[in-house]
Amino acid sequence: MRRLLDTAPEHLRSGAVAVACSGGADSLALAAAATHVARHRDLSVHGLVVDHGLQPGSAGIAEEAASRLRELGCAEARVLTVRVTGRGGPEAAARRARYAALDAARPPGALVLLGHTRNDQAETVLLGLGRGSGPRSIAGMRPLDPPWARPFLDVSRTTTAAACAALGLRPWDDPHNADPRFTRVRLRREVLPLLEEVLRGGVAEALARTAAQLREDAEALDQLAAGLLADALGAAGAGDGADTTDVGLDTGSETEGAGVDAPTLAAAPVALRRRALRAWLLGRGVTGLTDQHLRRVDALLGAWRGQGGVALPGGLVVRRAHGRLHLDRPQQRG
Amino acid sequence: MRRLLDTAPEHLRSGAVAVACSGGADSLALAAAATHVARHRDLSVHGLVVDHGLQPGSAGIAEEAASRLRELGCAEARVLTVRVTGRGGPEAAARRARYAALDAARPPGALVLLGHTRNDQAETVLLGLGRGSGPRSIAGMRPLDPPWARPFLDVSRTTTAAACAALGLRPWDDPHNADPRFTRVRLRREVLPLLEEVLRGGVAEALARTAAQLREDAEALDQLAAGLLADALGAAGAGDGADTTDVGLDTGSETEGAGVDAPTLAAAPVALRRRALRAWLLGRGVTGLTDQHLRRVDALLGAWRGQGGVALPGGLVVRRAHGRLHLDRPQQRG
Repeated sequence: MRRLLDTAPEHLRSGAVAVACSGGADSLALAAAATHVARHRDLSVHGLVVDHGLQPGSAGIAEEAASRLRELGCAEARVLTVRVTGRGGPEAAARRARYAALDAARPPGALVLLGHTRNDQAETVLLGLGRGSGPRSIAGMRPLDPPWARPFLDVSRTTTAAACAALGLRPWDDPHNADPRFTRVRLRREVLPLLEEVLRGGVAEALARTAAQLREDAEALDQLAAGLLADALGAAGAGDGADTTDVGLDTGSETEGAGVDAPTLAAAPVALRRRALRAWLLGRGVTGLTDQHLRRVDALLGAWRGQGGVALPGGLVVRRAHGRLHLDRPQQRG
Repeated sequence: MRRLLDTAPEHLRSGAVAVACSGGADSLALAAAATHVARHRDLSVHGLVVDHGLQPGSAGIAEEAASRLRELGCAEARVLTVRVTGRGGPEAAARRARYAALDAARPPGALVLLGHTRNDQAETVLLGLGRGSGPRSIAGMRPLDPPWARPFLDVSRTTTAAACAALGLRPWDDPHNADPRFTRVRLRREVLPLLEEVLRGGVAEALARTAAQLREDAEALDQLAAGLLADALGAAGAGDGADTTDVGLDTGSETEGAGVDAPTLAAAPVALRRRALRAWLLGRGVTGLTDQHLRRVDALLGAWRGQGGVALPGGLVVRRAHGRLHLDRPQQRG
């Protein structure tokens, strides 16, 4: 906690920090740690409790948590009532509503501390593995991702429970945490214990350690790919073919219609190339990109033999012409 | 299979390819595929069966597998008898003995095809996750890692079993594959099925897909880190301090005693910096390096405040002096 705050001094200039608290052991221990640390600094701690309204009595539980936060020394403690609706499963919808409410309620410029532990991180990594969407999906949650901060990402759930017991705090036991309809609950209660047994312990730490290294790798690769994309956007090409009409989506920063230079990209390692292509296409407003799409676009660089364009979601097509890749919307026919 | 061979023409110049076969479904299907493909090319297929001598009757089972290989059309099929001894668990010792025997027995210049499937890859990734030694450990096995080639890394075990059935081949069912004393067996029979159930299928494919991307990332980072290290070895430094005696381990390629330039390394992203440091130290013969060691050495770059040296295994110490890192063996005292 101290270490995280020490590495993030620029985020403490507002003099305030918010703590998101469900009343559970992790976030109650976090609030206790935050108020303890704040006492020795010129920081006020603002408690935020989200009431999702998904369980009977949730309002009372939230008020209870807010009282605990005031007792712990929070300058204020508010209950934020949210409506959980929209796309995705109930877990995703609740998360979206929660983060939006916390962001809106935090004091201006303040970080929001979240109680995610090493165990949550291990569950997140396993969920990402199951999605199979690559290194990005298993890199887990970031300790500092303003306005969010997760000072307990290296702390185990056993430790937060012990901290609450030592401080005489009685955490709320969310029945959702035992409901096997939630994937995360089954990972926590079935998969991870079995994995710990089979691999003889240390799995949560191992997953968290690997996730931390993956984040560093991803940052380096993203940074290098951004440089590569800048080069590819800037490199002088032979100009567009007369039959390729670039779509100006007004979201990219490259010259409209100029596309990206194929030889510049082709000379880079595939991991950088695909990241640069992804950044280029996302920047032009392409959505719903899969790894398959990127591999096909990449084949226009690495396996170029005059093939036709690659279809992307939204009727967009990437074509190669005169040594450059262009994003086209095909002409309507008839 | 065809695709892998097509991408590796330089490894087929010898006109021969070896197939490692246990008599199990995966490697029997692999041998069938290899002899089928070889018929249409100028390739001879050499069957290699390793008898580990770990189970009663293993010699007979090996001879049986060799007969199958000859029936499938292998130019020859040999049984290699190995002695499983040495450090590590029995699985590691058997693997070491097996790979050494296969490498020694393959025709000169020939690839050895191995029957690892997508399911083996998923188990390997989970084993690596449990070790927690970073992205490298979860990147899994490589499709082509001469002399080894794994054409079935995208093929499921269900498919190899179906292929054997369709071809009328009766694979041998290794009782070790059902022995819960082996970690890999428990991952295969307990953890992965549970994970498939909880995450609603597709886990083996997802793990294999993520592993493939991690390998590409690792290759890009290793390549970039090698360039960074070359720069850091070459950059002009202020020379050694009189009190730092570099150890010449004769394994590195840098100028003896010159060390590496700290500002050059410090300017790079941490993921490249730590890989360059790792390559430098491994090249100087340092063994037993952990992530902790590398983080401490890295602090001499990123968090330099005049601190002392960092102790490494084997009594070695990395110190910073005059803007360079040096690998020292401290002077004996008294």
